[in-house]
Amino acid sequence: MNTQQIRIIDRLTGTIEQQLASRDLTAVTATVASLPVPELVPVFDRLTLRQRAVVFRLLPKERALEAFDALPPPLQSDLLHGLQDAEVSRLFAELDPDDRAWLLEEVPAALATRLLRDLPEADRLLTAGLLGYPQGSAGRRMTPEYVSTRASFSADETLDRVRAGLRDAETVYTIPVLDDARRVVGVVSLRDLLGAEGDARVETLMQPARTAEAADGAELVARRCADLSLLAMPIVDSEQRLLGMLTIDDAVRILEHEESEDAARQGGTEPLRRPYLSTPVRSLVRSRVVWLLVLAVGATLTVQVLSVFEATIDQVTVLALFVPLLIGTGGNTGNQAATTVTRALALGDVRPGDIVRVLTRELRTGALLGLLLGSLGFAIAGFAYSPAIGAVVGLTLLAVCTVAAAVGGCMPLLARAVRVDPAVFSNPFISTFVDASGLVIYFVIARAVLHL
Amino acid sequence: MNTQQIRIIDRLTGTIEQQLASRDLTAVTATVASLPVPELVPVFDRLTLRQRAVVFRLLPKERALEAFDALPPPLQSDLLHGLQDAEVSRLFAELDPDDRAWLLEEVPAALATRLLRDLPEADRLLTAGLLGYPQGSAGRRMTPEYVSTRASFSADETLDRVRAGLRDAETVYTIPVLDDARRVVGVVSLRDLLGAEGDARVETLMQPARTAEAADGAELVARRCADLSLLAMPIVDSEQRLLGMLTIDDAVRILEHEESEDAARQGGTEPLRRPYLSTPVRSLVRSRVVWLLVLAVGATLTVQVLSVFEATIDQVTVLALFVPLLIGTGGNTGNQAATTVTRALALGDVRPGDIVRVLTRELRTGALLGLLLGSLGFAIAGFAYSPAIGAVVGLTLLAVCTVAAAVGGCMPLLARAVRVDPAVFSNPFISTFVDASGLVIYFVIARAVLHL
Repeated sequence: MNTQQIRIIDRLTGTIEQQLASRDLTAVTATVASLPVPELVPVFDRLTLRQRAVVFRLLPKERALEAFDALPPPLQSDLLHGLQDAEVSRLFAELDPDDRAWLLEEVPAALATRLLRDLPEADRLLTAGLLGYPQGSAGRRMTPEYVSTRASFSADETLDRVRAGLRDAETVYTIPVLDDARRVVGVVSLRDLLGAEGDARVETLMQPARTAEAADGAELVARRCADLSLLAMPIVDSEQRLLGMLTIDDAVRILEHEESEDAARQGGTEPLRRPYLSTPVRSLVRSRVVWLLVLAVGATLTVQVLSVFEATIDQVTVLALFVPLLIGTGGNTGNQAATTVTRALALGDVRPGDIVRVLTRELRTGALLGLLLGSLGFAIAGFAYSPAIGAVVGLTLLAVCTVAAAVGGCMPLLARAVRVDPAVFSNPFISTFVDASGLVIYFVIARAVLHL
Repeated sequence: MNTQQIRIIDRLTGTIEQQLASRDLTAVTATVASLPVPELVPVFDRLTLRQRAVVFRLLPKERALEAFDALPPPLQSDLLHGLQDAEVSRLFAELDPDDRAWLLEEVPAALATRLLRDLPEADRLLTAGLLGYPQGSAGRRMTPEYVSTRASFSADETLDRVRAGLRDAETVYTIPVLDDARRVVGVVSLRDLLGAEGDARVETLMQPARTAEAADGAELVARRCADLSLLAMPIVDSEQRLLGMLTIDDAVRILEHEESEDAARQGGTEPLRRPYLSTPVRSLVRSRVVWLLVLAVGATLTVQVLSVFEATIDQVTVLALFVPLLIGTGGNTGNQAATTVTRALALGDVRPGDIVRVLTRELRTGALLGLLLGSLGFAIAGFAYSPAIGAVVGLTLLAVCTVAAAVGGCMPLLARAVRVDPAVFSNPFISTFVDASGLVIYFVIARAVLHL
């Protein structure tokens, strides 16, 4: 949004908050009645849970449906808790099947069962079908509502099918072409149909279909859909029979969700499920405390290592001065490598099988960086203290950077190989490992150089 | 891609690398001739610069065009360097105007001038028009090739315009509706046109248009396009006159580019412009060395701080044992806060104006985390060493976590307020600041508690 739109949203949010605080519900009703839904959603993102529930109940019926549909699933789930059963069922039934499946993953199990049970039969079958696929798979995110055609049909016949399916189908711009066994043999775009002669056969207009299986991970499929610039990707079973379509807008939402998850985990937190300002402080604490504890426990390792070398520090106290610098630099180097490789993994540019190539590249990169920093460290510490201290600092920097880059580059690949989120292994774990090993390297070098 | 497709790509890449190594160009030509372009691109991503140049020249003409179009701009720029002028001009002319604009930002200035000059006049005007907008703006990424209509036209008349424009227009699924002054008054979808009576007027079918200005930042516009689930967004000037359309596939590419940039900077590196395995080691070093130096220089601050307290460490050597644990925990806490707020900034969930709300939430979060960790630290250190040491460790953890969370949460907002990339201010800078201030806090508390 540009600055002007941002100011409008802020002003509106402030107005609504004031009106709510003074319990002036008539004023709130008037304010939100005039708001189009794309302006309403950012306002909702900035209210607290209670405020959202109140405002939502004041929306006119049609607007409420539209707003509900536009909210992300965690906020939808919040809203359902405060509403009457009939209202809940109505909102739920109006969603598209794939959006229903997404929402059901967010609500408590008892509510999920009730929501499914209260659906009209046809809708329930559609939604239950999607839920049959494993969590996180493409099958959960595809839409079962689409228009299909046959290779032998004409362009006009296909356009008739499109017109007939307009009301229900989520996407009509990419049309899968099926054979008698419902296997996908190609796709034809609405654009190509319009540009062709009415009696042209679909098989002369169709393109090869890029498909994905319903059991494939949703993130991989979404990334492929985006890479190939597809408006919709046919989702098939292991026999290439069509099950549904994954549309680009759902692919984008999946990727945004995954990016948030990766960004959070690389920073050592669990991802937030709601927009930041609508997340209560206790949820912020909960998203961070586990990681912080794990890291702190790991860091006690550094206390152990240092206690082993306590006598050395007592002898040459100046060694203690460089500890944060050395392990900090090691941590940064490892973090850089892990960040780069984790992102490359996410984009599909590297895979666990590439570990040897990654290791050699990171060893070389780390050694070059360590050589540069080590020379600087030797020069500065040697000048400020003594050549011996300078040598210790310089050699440690060289060793630590090399080890850190290698470890940082390989950890994400190992994580992916054992099916753990690579972003989880980044920054946090690597810092701990590099800190402890860096200290050992430092004091071993110090004892050797200074003959302690 | 699923596992099977990955194995195919790996096998092909290995085969091609072997054939190149034994200079068997005939074999390479045969291998790539059978590859569809979506399989060719991942293979290219995994070859070196020289290998890519050789393989590209062996592609059949039409395939070469398609492959070139599908590659990301940095790889396109690499390829242009090794080709004949006539070939270069041909490839360049075949691109869409917005893809040309993207590529021109990647190539050296002399080549860019020549490429533009050699374009057919109409194409040159289109492309030059896009380049008139500031770098990083939506105007650079929009397509000037689209179909438009008028509110007074009928559905059939609009469909005729669509058919006429099919060859050149990049998008026909979202059609902007203009008035006599070319101002955007609405949008109509191809879907709605097909479902209507032939003589229905566009103004009965159109929806309000969500537009963006050409001067707006490309990332903001792309995020809005994705949030609103639009297939294309009209891009207008300050008078709401239509200039072009930003399509969803370009929006997705912009967002992917921005995510990579954010992920890299939060990890303390500059983003890679090529896929990881096709990036030479010296480029990896270059992307990291600046940050590493900046951080190392910042870390010398810790050496200074510790030298001020060197006498204290000499007196009570055991204090040195906790230094990595305490500043590491502070760094992690600050990093968590910065990661969360930076992501929220990117999604548009918070803005610089929210700094007071963010500060209060982070102070509370940091204090709660510090209370928890400090209690544990007091218990463990007090048991292992002495209650006095335990008190020092516990109080320091409480203070450091609170300060770190507050600083970590606010730095990204300050960065955005002075128009610097918030991800740049994260992890790296915050670690340095928190490290130095954490040490000061630690030793001040230690001196007070231990009466030194």
